[in-house]
Amino acid sequence: MNYRIVTNILGKIMTLIAALMILPVIVCIIYKEDLINYIAFLVPMVALFIIGRILNIKKAESNRILAREGFVIVGLSWIILALFGCIPYIISKNIPNFFDALFEMASGFTTTGSSILTSFDNLDHSIMFWRSFAHWIGGMGVLVFILAIIPESKDGSAMHILRAESPGPQVGKLVSKMRATSRILYLIYLVLTITLILILWLGPDKKMDLFRSMIYSFGTAGTGGFGIDSGSLETFASSTQYIIATFMLIFAINFSIFYLILIGNFKEVFKNEELRSYLIIVFVSVLIITLNVYTTFKDTVFQYTFEESFRHAYFQVASIISTTGYTTVNYITWPSTSIMILILLTLIGACAGSTAGGLKVARLNILSKSMVQKIRNMISPRRVETIKIDGKSLNNEAVRSVESYFTLYIIILLVCTLLISIDGFDFTTNFTASLTCLNNVGPGYSSIIGPYGSFSEFSWFSKLVLTFEMITGRLEIFPILILFSRRTWKKRI
Amino acid sequence: MNYRIVTNILGKIMTLIAALMILPVIVCIIYKEDLINYIAFLVPMVALFIIGRILNIKKAESNRILAREGFVIVGLSWIILALFGCIPYIISKNIPNFFDALFEMASGFTTTGSSILTSFDNLDHSIMFWRSFAHWIGGMGVLVFILAIIPESKDGSAMHILRAESPGPQVGKLVSKMRATSRILYLIYLVLTITLILILWLGPDKKMDLFRSMIYSFGTAGTGGFGIDSGSLETFASSTQYIIATFMLIFAINFSIFYLILIGNFKEVFKNEELRSYLIIVFVSVLIITLNVYTTFKDTVFQYTFEESFRHAYFQVASIISTTGYTTVNYITWPSTSIMILILLTLIGACAGSTAGGLKVARLNILSKSMVQKIRNMISPRRVETIKIDGKSLNNEAVRSVESYFTLYIIILLVCTLLISIDGFDFTTNFTASLTCLNNVGPGYSSIIGPYGSFSEFSWFSKLVLTFEMITGRLEIFPILILFSRRTWKKRI
Repeated sequence: MNYRIVTNILGKIMTLIAALMILPVIVCIIYKEDLINYIAFLVPMVALFIIGRILNIKKAESNRILAREGFVIVGLSWIILALFGCIPYIISKNIPNFFDALFEMASGFTTTGSSILTSFDNLDHSIMFWRSFAHWIGGMGVLVFILAIIPESKDGSAMHILRAESPGPQVGKLVSKMRATSRILYLIYLVLTITLILILWLGPDKKMDLFRSMIYSFGTAGTGGFGIDSGSLETFASSTQYIIATFMLIFAINFSIFYLILIGNFKEVFKNEELRSYLIIVFVSVLIITLNVYTTFKDTVFQYTFEESFRHAYFQVASIISTTGYTTVNYITWPSTSIMILILLTLIGACAGSTAGGLKVARLNILSKSMVQKIRNMISPRRVETIKIDGKSLNNEAVRSVESYFTLYIIILLVCTLLISIDGFDFTTNFTASLTCLNNVGPGYSSIIGPYGSFSEFSWFSKLVLTFEMITGRLEIFPILILFSRRTWKKRI
Repeated sequence: MNYRIVTNILGKIMTLIAALMILPVIVCIIYKEDLINYIAFLVPMVALFIIGRILNIKKAESNRILAREGFVIVGLSWIILALFGCIPYIISKNIPNFFDALFEMASGFTTTGSSILTSFDNLDHSIMFWRSFAHWIGGMGVLVFILAIIPESKDGSAMHILRAESPGPQVGKLVSKMRATSRILYLIYLVLTITLILILWLGPDKKMDLFRSMIYSFGTAGTGGFGIDSGSLETFASSTQYIIATFMLIFAINFSIFYLILIGNFKEVFKNEELRSYLIIVFVSVLIITLNVYTTFKDTVFQYTFEESFRHAYFQVASIISTTGYTTVNYITWPSTSIMILILLTLIGACAGSTAGGLKVARLNILSKSMVQKIRNMISPRRVETIKIDGKSLNNEAVRSVESYFTLYIIILLVCTLLISIDGFDFTTNFTASLTCLNNVGPGYSSIIGPYGSFSEFSWFSKLVLTFEMITGRLEIFPILILFSRRTWKKRI
């Protein structure tokens, strides 16, 4: 382990977080908040800045970053992010309890959007801003941000960092240089976010003032899901609901698709199997849920019009598959089939290389093809067939790696469900709490943790387990699990 | 596909089933039942016998059985078994509805033990006998039975049949000859079953007459779980509960262990990792549930003594991990942690090469080792490490095959949960119904399908889906899935 390079980069991360905290301080000034809120942000800023400097006093002799260093840097960065990021909540007394504050911050950075808050009435604007801005930063990744601004070492070892932080089974560079790739990604992200802010702010919905437009745009862009209104987006105009639903779907698409569109390479876009599968899943889910909800509630007191059925189905499907978690309706009252589809979408998640969480459609594609191959192989054991994705053959190692990932995913899901069961909630609550946190979605599928509920009723132990799941899920398991292995910390392997 | 050999063996199976139906006819005579019950058994017997003969008129030119033929023979046999086996239920009007009868029969043969019956008051003795005897036959397998009685072909191609029907990731022959292996297996099975019948019958529990002793011994030996008393074993003496719990655990052990004990090879027994893991899982689960139940209910009206807590924990753990499904208590009122442990045991199941269902401890061992290997491999990508089981290295293909199996397992579980959700039950009911049927356990974890419930409230469509899951789970997926592939039915591959 190249310890020096790890501490160097962690130091840079800490300085970056300190710098990012300037933004909520500006919000403090605009809204003329109490002195305590300034202190709330200044304390971690100073601490982060000092520690960051200390960690950078001794420069590493070698810039070499291997897979191991990449994982450790990413895993530790995100833990530091959550630990320091939650200090303002505690000092400002907006969320005085440590485990609550940690949960809320991890939920922000990992773009989960599960909340322990039961009301938003006592939140200060700076805190609201920081809480939602975390979604925006976490969506694209802090390390990617660092890569975009620091000079690149020649041996391309920064690739290991990008690979450890970016979601999906395979990470490709858009252009040959890592730094340029990171910049392009962040630029697309920034432009799309600003577009959404403007559309919401200038749109017909009176309730969407500039501050709300920013809050909901951060939540949508990062596919996070934190809001500042009880009932999430339920009380907003239907135009707002359609706009946000559509943007949630957009932000859940692999960003390299946008790059391909920008450079006019439409051929590659149409060839992309993940995009196609993703759109088909969305279409089929919306169709089934619309019909299921419309016909079930017809002629009852809960009756929806067809447009309402469609809008709520479209919104909820977009929100869950993109792992955002905003809601326009309390869907736990929906018929079982609709709920089950949403639960499956919670597991699947959206496209690799987007801001979304979950298993990813790319992995689902590989898994389904691998299953078909497996059955064929049982029939004719001597015939060797390879799996093709986007027209290219995938080697066995890559396929196996996806199957291992899926196995590990399910094991973590079940073990964490067992751990939080000590609080005594029912199976649906425990299972979907574990599922929604691991996949960075947000709400669960019982009245306790559903659209009208919150995670406040869980014990500190369960909150810690769920925090672990959020970070593990966002970083796709390995950067966190690796921290627990003794071998990781050896000087030489 | 060697069609002729497939039809030949299917013909033999059908003749065998016809022959097995003589036993319930004897029960008809003993209990002096109505004429309709004789007809109920004679109709399928005659039909099976005639079709069986017809399928054996033209003998196959080649006895060659490859993997494909092995799977198809096993898959079709079990479907035929369920279809013809359920005719007595329908004709005798004990279970007049076709889908109910099919479900009950499949549940019997696959040793699941889920029932659509809400009361046992109107069941005739011959039907009770046939229902439970199916557990006994299905536990060890019908094909294994056939292999034990027909002459063996020289090229050992019968191995493909044994492999397709026997549970577990790897099937080993006990002795060099297939036929001898099958005979030894059935002999051990028979002796253990008769021992249990005698212990129960001659034991202190007055309620255990000879008929009941046979019924519950069939259910225990096959790890099935059908009973003939409401509340399963709740009203029986605690001695009976201890005896059955212990025998459930015994029948869930790999039968090759008994063979090793018989020939005095204790060294191999102690080296067996699956057995060790199995016993550890049982021990830890019983310990946690005993303490969890005892402390939770202490000083409440539901209070258990410590002995009761232990006995119910021991019984339920033994029943669920062995995938039997007998109960002594309505465990859905238990605290969440205990329920969650039982749900996990439902998924895990017991040892390969036993009469139990589920994922199997052997696979769990391979999966856990593979996950550790995966994490180590992430840390030091260049170091190649192999997984060892029982001191022997496992090749990558074998490991991958277990991961694929697990993936397919979870996908089937979730898709079937979605399919049965159209009935409108809650998530816990749907998920655990799907889980308990796929793993051949029996009861689920909600009031509808729990120890006091039944599967009668599901629609015919859901019953069909669950029947599919029971057979697919018992045969470990491939023999059934392969039937749906066009490639299977081609003359040449």
